[in-house]
Parts: sequence; C-alpha cells; structure tokens
Amino acid sequence: MNLTINREAATPVYLQIASQIKGQILSGNLPAGFILPPERKLAEFNKISRTTVNKAYEELKALGLVDAQTGRGTVVTEQKVPVSAPKKQQPVLPMSWYPLFDKRMASLNDAVSEIMYMGNQNRVISLAAGIGDPDLYPIADFQRIQREQPITSTHLNFSPVEGYYPLRESISQLMESRNLAVTAKEIMILSGSMQGIDFAARAFLSAGDAVIVEEPTFLQAIECFRATGAKIIGIPMDQEGMRLDVLEAQISRYKPKFIYTIPNFHNPTGITMSMARRKALLKLAYRFQVPILEDDPYGDIAFDQEHPLPIKALDAYGYVIYLSTLSKALFPGLRIGWTIAPEPVMKKFLLLKQITDLHVNTDSQILVDRYLRDGCYGGHLMKILPLYRKKRDAAAELLRQEQSSIHFDFPAGGFYLWCRLPYSVPQKKLLALCGEQGVIYTPGNVFYPQESDGEHWVRLNYTYERIDRLRQGLMVFIKSVKKLSEWNGTRGVSTGARPIV
Amino acid sequence: MNLTINREAATPVYLQIASQIKGQILSGNLPAGFILPPERKLAEFNKISRTTVNKAYEELKALGLVDAQTGRGTVVTEQKVPVSAPKKQQPVLPMSWYPLFDKRMASLNDAVSEIMYMGNQNRVISLAAGIGDPDLYPIADFQRIQREQPITSTHLNFSPVEGYYPLRESISQLMESRNLAVTAKEIMILSGSMQGIDFAARAFLSAGDAVIVEEPTFLQAIECFRATGAKIIGIPMDQEGMRLDVLEAQISRYKPKFIYTIPNFHNPTGITMSMARRKALLKLAYRFQVPILEDDPYGDIAFDQEHPLPIKALDAYGYVIYLSTLSKALFPGLRIGWTIAPEPVMKKFLLLKQITDLHVNTDSQILVDRYLRDGCYGGHLMKILPLYRKKRDAAAELLRQEQSSIHFDFPAGGFYLWCRLPYSVPQKKLLALCGEQGVIYTPGNVFYPQESDGEHWVRLNYTYERIDRLRQGLMVFIKSVKKLSEWNGTRGVSTGARPIV
Repeated sequence: MNLTINREAATPVYLQIASQIKGQILSGNLPAGFILPPERKLAEFNKISRTTVNKAYEELKALGLVDAQTGRGTVVTEQKVPVSAPKKQQPVLPMSWYPLFDKRMASLNDAVSEIMYMGNQNRVISLAAGIGDPDLYPIADFQRIQREQPITSTHLNFSPVEGYYPLRESISQLMESRNLAVTAKEIMILSGSMQGIDFAARAFLSAGDAVIVEEPTFLQAIECFRATGAKIIGIPMDQEGMRLDVLEAQISRYKPKFIYTIPNFHNPTGITMSMARRKALLKLAYRFQVPILEDDPYGDIAFDQEHPLPIKALDAYGYVIYLSTLSKALFPGLRIGWTIAPEPVMKKFLLLKQITDLHVNTDSQILVDRYLRDGCYGGHLMKILPLYRKKRDAAAELLRQEQSSIHFDFPAGGFYLWCRLPYSVPQKKLLALCGEQGVIYTPGNVFYPQESDGEHWVRLNYTYERIDRLRQGLMVFIKSVKKLSEWNGTRGVSTGARPIV
Repeated sequence: MNLTINREAATPVYLQIASQIKGQILSGNLPAGFILPPERKLAEFNKISRTTVNKAYEELKALGLVDAQTGRGTVVTEQKVPVSAPKKQQPVLPMSWYPLFDKRMASLNDAVSEIMYMGNQNRVISLAAGIGDPDLYPIADFQRIQREQPITSTHLNFSPVEGYYPLRESISQLMESRNLAVTAKEIMILSGSMQGIDFAARAFLSAGDAVIVEEPTFLQAIECFRATGAKIIGIPMDQEGMRLDVLEAQISRYKPKFIYTIPNFHNPTGITMSMARRKALLKLAYRFQVPILEDDPYGDIAFDQEHPLPIKALDAYGYVIYLSTLSKALFPGLRIGWTIAPEPVMKKFLLLKQITDLHVNTDSQILVDRYLRDGCYGGHLMKILPLYRKKRDAAAELLRQEQSSIHFDFPAGGFYLWCRLPYSVPQKKLLALCGEQGVIYTPGNVFYPQESDGEHWVRLNYTYERIDRLRQGLMVFIKSVKKLSEWNGTRGVSTGARPIV
C-alpha cells in the first residue's frame, strides 16, 4: 500500500496514514472485505514504527471503517447503504424526537418555569417566589446612572469571558465586607450564580459520579446535578446545618466529586451553618480531599448580624469554590452572579463560559459596577433589611396565632419560612385548594433529590409580596391547612384545579 | 423483617421498602454481613409482589449498602470508614483537582478567549475578530430609547424563561423579512445563538453519539460538541455547501443525532448553500430521519441579495431547529439570540435554560424589542451593508494585487475571507511573524474537528477594523506570507512571540 508520509507536518504520522486509508475506503478504492496489510509489513515498507501503524488502524476501527477479524487481519467493513442508490420517492415520516434526546434529559423536571409562570399572573398572591420585593428595587439609582452615563459602543461590545474588569474589582470590594480578601483576578462574573452550579456540574460530574447536597436543597441545583446523570446524595440537616456524622459515612461510601452547601439562610430551610460546623466541614473536606461548592445567595439578607463568614474565608488550602449573586439583595433580572474559585477550576469555568454564553451582558456589568462603585449597595441593604424583617415577623406571627399545627423554625435571615404540615394534610389537595383561591406556594418535595421525601413540607416566601397581600395569602394558606387537617384527608376535595408542580 | 407499607403514599412501595432497610443499615441495626430475607419470603410476608422486593434490593445494591453473594443471598456490606473514629490530626493535602474533572473537559481548547484577548489589545490590528465595526453600532437609537423609557422594576425583574413576550413578537416580525412565518410562541430568546448550539449538544449528545458538521465550521460549535464526548464527523464543502454524497455515506455509517449547518455566508468559508442543495439536504434529512440544526448568524449581511431563504422555511415536516442572533448585524455585547424549534425540542431547551441562566437579561430584551419595534433595524442594515461591502472589496483587491499565491473565493456576504496559504508557509511561523508586527488573524486549524486539517488555511475578518487599519493589517499579513513562502520554510524565524492559539 502506497502512502505519502510527511514527517515535518503538524499532523501526527499515524493520522496521516489513517486519513489516506480512510480516503481510499470512502472513495470505494478499498472495497468491503479488503484486508489491510499486516501492521508489521506496512511499518517496514514505509519505514515507520509498528506502534504508529497500530495507532492508525485503531483510528480506522474507531471510525467504523475497518474491523479486526481473528484469523484474517484488519478488514474493510461493509458500507451499510450504498452511496449511489437512493430509493424511489418515499413518504416523509414525522420526526421522532424522543428517541433522539439524550437519556439524561428525561430526568429533568419543569417545576421551575411552572412556579415562575404561576407567579407571573398578576392576581395570584405568590408565596412561591424566590425573589425580593420589586417595589424595593433601587430604580432611582439606576435611572441616575443611565442618565449620567448613556450607552456607548463599549456597553454593546464584547466584554472579556471572565467578566468586565472594573466590576470584578467592585465585587472584590464587596467581598471585603464579607471578610473574604480576594483580588479582582480571582473573581469571575457569571450569568447568575446558578451558572456556577451548572459549570461545576459540567466540569466534575457525569453518569456514575456522586455529588453531595443538603437535604432539602435548592431546586435548580438538584436539576443541574440530575442533568449530568450523577447520583445525588442528600444529607439531613439539624439546627447547625448539614449533619457531619451522616456526611462522613456517605463520603466514604460514595466518594463524591464535591459537596454542595448553602451555609447562610439556607434555601429552603432558613438554617445558618454554625461556625463550629463550618470548621468541621472543612476539616472533613481536607481529610477526604473533597471540594466544597459554597453557594451564598442569601448571606446579605441577615437580620441580626453581619454577613456570616463564608466557609471560603476559613479555607487556607483552596478546597472551596464560592458562588454569590446580586439577584436576592438587588434584583434578579440582570442575571449577575460571580464565582471565586481555585485557579484550575477557574480555567475550566472559563472554557465552559466560552461554549455557552461567552460572557455576561456588557451593558449590565457596567451598570452594576457603577452602582457598586457609587457606594449605593450598603445603603440599599439598610433600607430593605428592616422591611424584610418586618415581613418575616408578620408572617411568623400569623402562622403561630392561627395554626399551631404548622411547625417552622424562626429564620435569622433569608427569604423563607420552611413549614411542616400536619401529617393528615395531603400536599396535592392543599396546593389545589390554595390555588383555587389565588394563592401559590412551593411544595416541599421539589427540594428533595427523592421528591416523595418532602411530602409534608412547604416553603413560604415572605419577601416578594406587599405586606397586606402577604398576610392575605397566608390566611388563605392557614385556613386551607385547617380545613384539610380537620377533614383528616378522608373526604374529597375538588381536583379540578391544575396542580402547580 | 417488619416493614410499614403505605399503598396510598406517593412514594412507590419499592422505595418505601428500600428506604426503611437503608435506615436500619445506616443506624447499625442491620450490621455488615447480615443476610436480608430472600425476596420471595419478604414478598409473601408483606403481601407485595416479588418484583417490588427485587426492585427494592436493586436500589440498595445501587446505593452500595448490600451485595448479592452467590450461595448466601443479599448481604449487608461493610461500612468502609466507621463514622465515629476520626484519625488524629493529619497534614492537609493540597487538592488534586485534575483527577476530579470530568474527562470530557480535557478535550476543550482555550482558542476562543486567546483570540478575544489578543483582539482586545488596542494597538493590535485584529483580522481575527468575529464581530462588526463598533463605530457602526446604533448608539444614538439606543440612547434615545433609554431616555424615552428609563429603567423600571420590570427591567430589573425576572422575565419568562422562554423570553420577554414582546421581543418574541418583534423577532417573529423580523423573521417575516426572512420569509419564515412563525408566531411569537414558536420563538425562544437565548443568551446568544451559541447557547442554542450548546442546548442542542446537551439535549441530544453524549459520549458514543455522532454529530455531523461542515468541515471547516464554527469553532465554538466544535467545542460544544466535543464537550459532550460525541464523535464529530466533518463533511467537506464545495461551492454549493456541504457535499451531500459524502454526507449520505456518513449518515448511514454513523447514524448522527443531528446535522449542524451554517447555510448563509458560512463561517469560516463564506460559502452560501445553493437552493438546490438546501432542498436536497432536507430530503436526505427526511429519508434518514435526522434533524438539522440550522445556524444563521450572518444571513442579514448579504451584499447582493435578500436574506437567503432559511432551510427552516422549506421544511414542512418540522425537522429543522433554527438559530439566529443580533450579534453580527447589531452588536454582540447584549448576548441576544433566538431559536425556532419544533415543540418537543423547545421543551427540552426550556428545561436547560432553567438550570443554566434562567432567562436572558430582562433590561436588554426590553431595549432590543423597542429598537426593533421602532423599525430601526432595516435602516441600520442599509447603512452598514455598503460599508462592509466596501471593506470586503478593499480586502479582496489588496490580496489579489499583492499576493497571487493566497487563494480565496469572493464571498457574497458575511464577515470573512477564507484563504489558502502557499503550501510552503508554516502556520505557526506566520502567526508569530504577524504577531510581532501587531497583526492577528485566525489560523484555519481551529475550524476543523481534526485541527491539523486546517494547517494551510486562515480566516481573515474584514468587518471589524476601520478600513485604513484593515488595509494596514492586510499588508503586514501579505508581506509575511511572501517572506515565508520565499524562504520556502527552510530558514528559521524567531519563535519568541507567543503563538495565538
């Protein structure tokens, strides 16, 4: 077999060989059944090593062009359909999409958009939201910034993949207020902190891997991890956070790729991890060499204290990937979050950013940078925190007065009351009953890797609605729980309403 | 074994069983070595089917809690590390990130950010860009819109996952000018059309799958597909687009999940697929039931004709997923693209959007909607097209006058000249030589699934630089090619400069 080999070319020799043989097979010069020369012979004839020929043949096998047949050697395989014999006009079949979808897609739920969709209907009172009160968005400041700095071509052009540098500086300033000293270069801007969860999922996980989460945990994190085909191991929580006795047993059992945690005003439980627990968690991570993905969207919504110290700030050995966002304390619509991660992780995130959305919206990065630089953020927190605290107190008081059978722990910050329903109240009936009266909330099951586990829990948001509507929605919720628990779940309830999830 | 089974509960019975046994194992009630009751016995005792017990045991096996041992039955496995015996203080090991990264991550290249990084340096003349001329961005219109409609809480709040409805309406209007009739509901807004490539990759591909692309093709598409572990099959092109004879052979050989094509002013070749080819491609797709992912970023940059008719507009059977963007004709910084896809695909994309960036930046969607609604886009195209045409003509003329050994086909639209270098010019040396003189371009190899294939090609962008700098950069490029081809690659060139890719 006559091959042209160029040892100076950038293409490795084995690929040059594979490519030439491939050409001859595809052109029909080497028909099906043709036996390629034995590796040794081809190597001698072309003065190349046998390993090189072997790699070339392996390449051709991988392409399905040849096959190793015992006793015969390396044989050109049959072309399944002859190139030049199209059938007569056939009816076009409708596309069957489902067999084409990757099987991991089947595990994804539509809970998020359903909840968002319901919440977007104006008349509905949403206790299901995951955002703050739109009436408190700092509109005036942003209008002023836009007046002072109208759009230029810089606002509309590309920005660097890792983020607009001045914003990275502003965020590093912001992180100082959280007692985490990082330079601008250690910060990467993301399209919401959720993108960091997705990037971590894609960088570390595939089918067969394991990842550890608190149980319950953030709905979208579960979905992200699910989409990789990884096994999601839930660790129960107590009042100090994730239970480390269970965690230790599960780390040694599953060898997880990383541990996902929301240490501050946890979603949905509202629990804040104690300092002792943070230190012990880090120690465990060091001992088993497992990274920690620390998600901190709610840390600034702290009613009785400063922003709790990030685990990342305690980590002297670079085990922690930190995520945060402005979606909770400011507003969610500009999709701006960030990550602070060890360099090898940052590099992978950068590669992923390049093949997903390239960079965060430039105009918004400039706007938010200006806002932070003008020093508006601290004052904004001082304005919203007393109001959110008031809403939390009002919600808690109402629940305690009216319905002693709904249990919850009083959260010191964040957006949610995590409530246990009386065992006799069926979640689906409660959702339907509230829904009929124009009130929605988030059923607990969506926060569990194994959804049935959250059957008797609900998450109530107290930040989004105006306080009067919050009270009104809670009254509907409370009365519905009462009604269903009195019935003891034995009598039927109209099931006409569409379930929310 | 005493089990509590609730047939009314939402949790399937087998999971109820698995969960109870799991609890007893983790608590130590069932120690390592304990033999679970035979499936048949447990089934009879609890009046459930043997299949149910079998599924419960399989679940426990999957969790690593029990093991099937021949001759003994289902046995509780040993806990690898006792929960209550932490070792004495050990030195903390540095985290070894690389073994933790998913192996598919290793295949990703950093070419994109390198090229962007080089292009962002002001003194550099970039023929490597993939964007239009920032001096032509419609700044005045956008400033006017911001003055007329200052930011409100709507601009800063969530928008629906599938996009801001008025913008979807405006895009459906825009699509009418491309002779594709779609309703707003059939359009989903994306964070750049590239996000649609990524979503298609994630929805359809995993390791072992195949995907077909034109060869050469869009760099980030290759990277996206690579990140799934799929096999990327390149189809050579002729002047009418993808070669269908090769395509047909490869479809029947590889059974690809979909065919990715850029039919209009293709990146990097500038080729526009002929109408006959479009129809034949669709027929082939129908015959083999393979979907087409049609990427149309450049269709509006048409110098001698209307926007070529999208393949999607010829598709009566819902086989085509269409992608487009405003990043080329308007500006790239707001990251706004869209997809028009059959419903099952749209649903999957919606799920993926929910776990990546949730929705596109609301403020930008409102801005762009206003711009389109005000009817500014058509006038903008009429302004920029003659200028880009002039730049194309200037670039082509210069190349023809000065260097007859650089071959290219004159493109009828788009952003690029795709040039074949004399065989004697080594890419790396040319990159270094141009780089030393402050000129960058994109080497051809990044556009090939098998990078070595593009060794003798380069992509030159003519839209980004001002026309004088474009000429200046091209002269550097042309002279460098001359110099290296005269040397015939035999004499050395300083290799001090950092290669761009």
